Amino acid sequence: MKALILVAGGVEDMEFYYPFYRLKEAGIPVDVAGPEKGKVHGKHGYPVDINESLSSIHADDYDLLILPGGKSPETVRLYSRALEVTRQMMEAGKCVAAICHGGQVLVSADVLKGRRATCYKAIRDDLKAAGATYVDEEVVVDGNLITSRVPDDLPAFFREINNMCAAHIS
Amino acid sequence: MKALILVAGGVEDMEFYYPFYRLKEAGIPVDVAGPEKGKVHGKHGYPVDINESLSSIHADDYDLLILPGGKSPETVRLYSRALEVTRQMMEAGKCVAAICHGGQVLVSADVLKGRRATCYKAIRDDLKAAGATYVDEEVVVDGNLITSRVPDDLPAFFREINNMCAAHIS
Amino acid sequence: MKALILVAGGVEDMEFYYPFYRLKEAGIPVDVAGPEKGKVHGKHGYPVDINESLSSIHADDYDLLILPGGKSPETVRLYSRALEVTRQMMEAGKCVAAICHGGQVLVSADVLKGRRATCYKAIRDDLKAAGATYVDEEVVVDGNLITSRVPDDLPAFFREINNMCAAHIS
Amino acid sequence: MKALILVAGGVEDMEFYYPFYRLKEAGIPVDVAGPEKGKVHGKHGYPVDINESLSSIHADDYDLLILPGGKSPETVRLYSRALEVTRQMMEAGKCVAAICHGGQVLVSADVLKGRRATCYKAIRDDLKAAGATYVDEEVVVDGNLITSRVPDDLPAFFREINNMCAAHIS
Amino acid sequence: MKALILVAGGVEDMEFYYPFYRLKEAGIPVDVAGPEKGKVHGKHGYPVDINESLSSIHADDYDLLILPGGKSPETVRLYSRALEVTRQMMEAGKCVAAICHGGQVLVSADVLKGRRATCYKAIRDDLKAAGATYVDEEVVVDGNLITSRVPDDLPAFFREINNMCAAHIS
Amino acid sequence: MKALILVAGGVEDMEFYYPFYRLKEAGIPVDVAGPEKGKVHGKHGYPVDINESLSSIHADDYDLLILPGGKSPETVRLYSRALEVTRQMMEAGKCVAAICHGGQVLVSADVLKGRRATCYKAIRDDLKAAGATYVDEEVVVDGNLITSRVPDDLPAFFREINNMCAAHIS
Repeated sequence: MKALILVAGGVEDMEFYYPFYRLKEAGIPVDVAGPEKGKVHGKHGYPVDINESLSSIHADDYDLLILPGGKSPETVRLYSRALEVTRQMMEAGKCVAAICHGGQVLVSADVLKGRRATCYKAIRDDLKAAGATYVDEEVVVDGNLITSRVPDDLPAFFREINNMCAAHIS
Repeated sequence: MKALILVAGGVEDMEFYYPFYRLKEAGIPVDVAGPEKGKVHGKHGYPVDINESLSSIHADDYDLLILPGGKSPETVRLYSRALEVTRQMMEAGKCVAAICHGGQVLVSADVLKGRRATCYKAIRDDLKAAGATYVDEEVVVDGNLITSRVPDDLPAFFREINNMCAAHIS
Repeated sequence: MKALILVAGGVEDMEFYYPFYRLKEAGIPVDVAGPEKGKVHGKHGYPVDINESLSSIHADDYDLLILPGGKSPETVRLYSRALEVTRQMMEAGKCVAAICHGGQVLVSADVLKGRRATCYKAIRDDLKAAGATYVDEEVVVDGNLITSRVPDDLPAFFREINNMCAAHIS
Repeated sequence: MKALILVAGGVEDMEFYYPFYRLKEAGIPVDVAGPEKGKVHGKHGYPVDINESLSSIHADDYDLLILPGGKSPETVRLYSRALEVTRQMMEAGKCVAAICHGGQVLVSADVLKGRRATCYKAIRDDLKAAGATYVDEEVVVDGNLITSRVPDDLPAFFREINNMCAAHIS
Repeated sequence: MKALILVAGGVEDMEFYYPFYRLKEAGIPVDVAGPEKGKVHGKHGYPVDINESLSSIHADDYDLLILPGGKSPETVRLYSRALEVTRQMMEAGKCVAAICHGGQVLVSADVLKGRRATCYKAIRDDLKAAGATYVDEEVVVDGNLITSRVPDDLPAFFREINNMCAAHIS
Repeated sequence: MKALILVAGGVEDMEFYYPFYRLKEAGIPVDVAGPEKGKVHGKHGYPVDINESLSSIHADDYDLLILPGGKSPETVRLYSRALEVTRQMMEAGKCVAAICHGGQVLVSADVLKGRRATCYKAIRDDLKAAGATYVDEEVVVDGNLITSRVPDDLPAFFREINNMCAAHIS
């Protein structure tokens, strides 16, 4: 099993690092893809190392996609390859998990039609406009799509990721 | 003639103050409505005085609506009255002008179906999902709707506001 | 008609950008001169592009001089050419407009003897020492010299610039 | 099973939140004790809610003690009750886990004599002076004491906490 | 012997604290007068305790006046009593020492006519306009007036204060 | 006579600059040694020029050692040469003066056994663990060792340095 996290400068630090460390704790390999390889900083100042370029990722290489929030999704969604990979992983039924503003990538990838989902409330109307049914709960699971609202939802968010990838994460 | 600007904390300072001062220069009265009366700060730290509450504004009182960007629209769009007033002014054919993330209020007010519009490029997919045709130009005029992308578009943005309200602004 | 704005790092952002965008809105070409070509930042963090060096400007090229405030005038006033150009434009009867700490450049250029003027109140004694009659009003016009006190005076400030350059700005 | 985390203003945000969320994910109740009930901020600006006062905690109520780093331990170690509780949990053979500057609390509690331990390298000499054998590894387990060095050690740190409290955390 | 330092928020921290601590080291009592009793912060964030109000000080109580720089003098010079006390101590031949922007208070107190003095170079033209002969040296002594330019001049600045008040400071 | 100050980035600005300027005022030459020659910044942002590398200093060259606090000692104590020089100057009976977190260097140099000393209270337990008797006074003199607690102790701190080096500082 292998996971992919899509980030850019200004990512919500906790929403990146909790899943990143959590997967490492479970022994799952993780790629961090961003606009270019190297270092960016989260909105609270934490450094984040990017080891893959957003324009060279392949959906086939991953079983789990994580889309953290903050200011990062407004950059990630500008990369067509990031959107393709999101679409392909959704279509392949792989686990796709977005939290907070991470939902903006889902809107751009156009994968929300008919889906139940949640997100940071300030962008709920964008998810609705993109065809989702917005639900105000700490975590919403609809098929292979897992969504949450804010950093404090991270425990529930990862519990569901855990459930969905049960064979791999402990 | 009377203008209305909708703001909240984190507004893009220049996108608030250029129109605000510009209207004052032209002698046009302006109301600044926000979550509550009092002072908030722009994302660059400028104080902004709010003299009307978002929940007590009436579309009938105004001839021109300005929606500045920054982080402010993510708060403004959560107020149903702000969305109603936007919708009513759009329907009444009054001048509605949004710049940058100001377009998020247009999405929530659901007034973009079939409209040509622009915005900060990071939210272009949200405008498209809401039914707009996105155009990458410094200012886009479609009927009574004027939209721009970034602070550097302010001169073009206000030139079109000027044109539309020609009898009043000089 | 062509305008010149003298700036340096730490300029009061609004006092630079309001006139800068306002002139662009009116279609007036503007040169921004600073210590060296390139980018500086205002005291609130806005980037400001400098397209002319303070040591290569000529009074003959301009019809309007604008001196914004903030920390910038303490740097601008150290450049003898900036002071010469200010003096020559004053003597030529061209419109010279200073706001806030912009008055420090007027002191150094020694163009205040016998003039009525205003400025940020913390430097009013410097203007008096330089021979000016200090007036506490939002805008003071004395011949070709226009002065204001703070960012909130910008509408009145530009209204008078407008009046003085009436043939050109609309 | 119940866990206790000792914090104060300036705590290393990730070293607090990773264990805090991780325990919540596992369904373990957690008390956060600090100088007084209410809110403090981590060194990166995250808010941290304190629900117990450092002077009213009892070792008997907890099975796991976590000591995050940052600037927080320099405050926590000034509270005699915090040191007593640390000592009592160490003596009772309960799991005590310190990361980064968290080791400063261990020094003050005088529980390091003859123990193998690690910490942020800048305080390694303090641990040695307090009787510990310093080891430069991502996580060091000596009996019921688990220690790590920096935020990037969090996955290894929690894997060992997990091992030690195996019946409870999954 | 007793010293007086005039400050306000934004004072250059080192230019306040070096003289303040230096006088304490020498056992000289010091009053710190500002807009109102209480705490302000220097431009680098140091807290400064004000124990006298600028409007209740008397020249007769002091033998030495120190005027530190930073943003503080732009506030201090707005208090007529601060200017009177400066004038009275100058006229009484007591030691008056100003560094950096501290010279702005000397301009407002109108005590520079015919004096040799230095200051932060960005305000040298203000001192000249007020009648001083500007000298670019680390410390300039003219009768009872001692002036310096920047924090790095503090050793020379205090050496001359020391010389002038030789019976008292060691 | 010659003095040595050991610093690194994050030094408590006042605790560096007061002694540094104070020695310059007295005409004593001072070397500032840090991780590498060049510029670092104090925790309040002041620039500090380093003219010697920590790995090339010799105890024989100096008569007085000053160890300022802040975050700097956590870096200085990682350089074995810095610790050797501290030890050698202690053994040679030369004046060694540490303030605030400066005591961390004394712990690492292992020169505190049987000594009376003070420090910033948050690290008092580290000094005790290293064999010192902690005393809560503004300045503590034990033989050639002078220690203080916080910036406000600087006058007392330097008065004792002065006493100890009486022939040289005035």
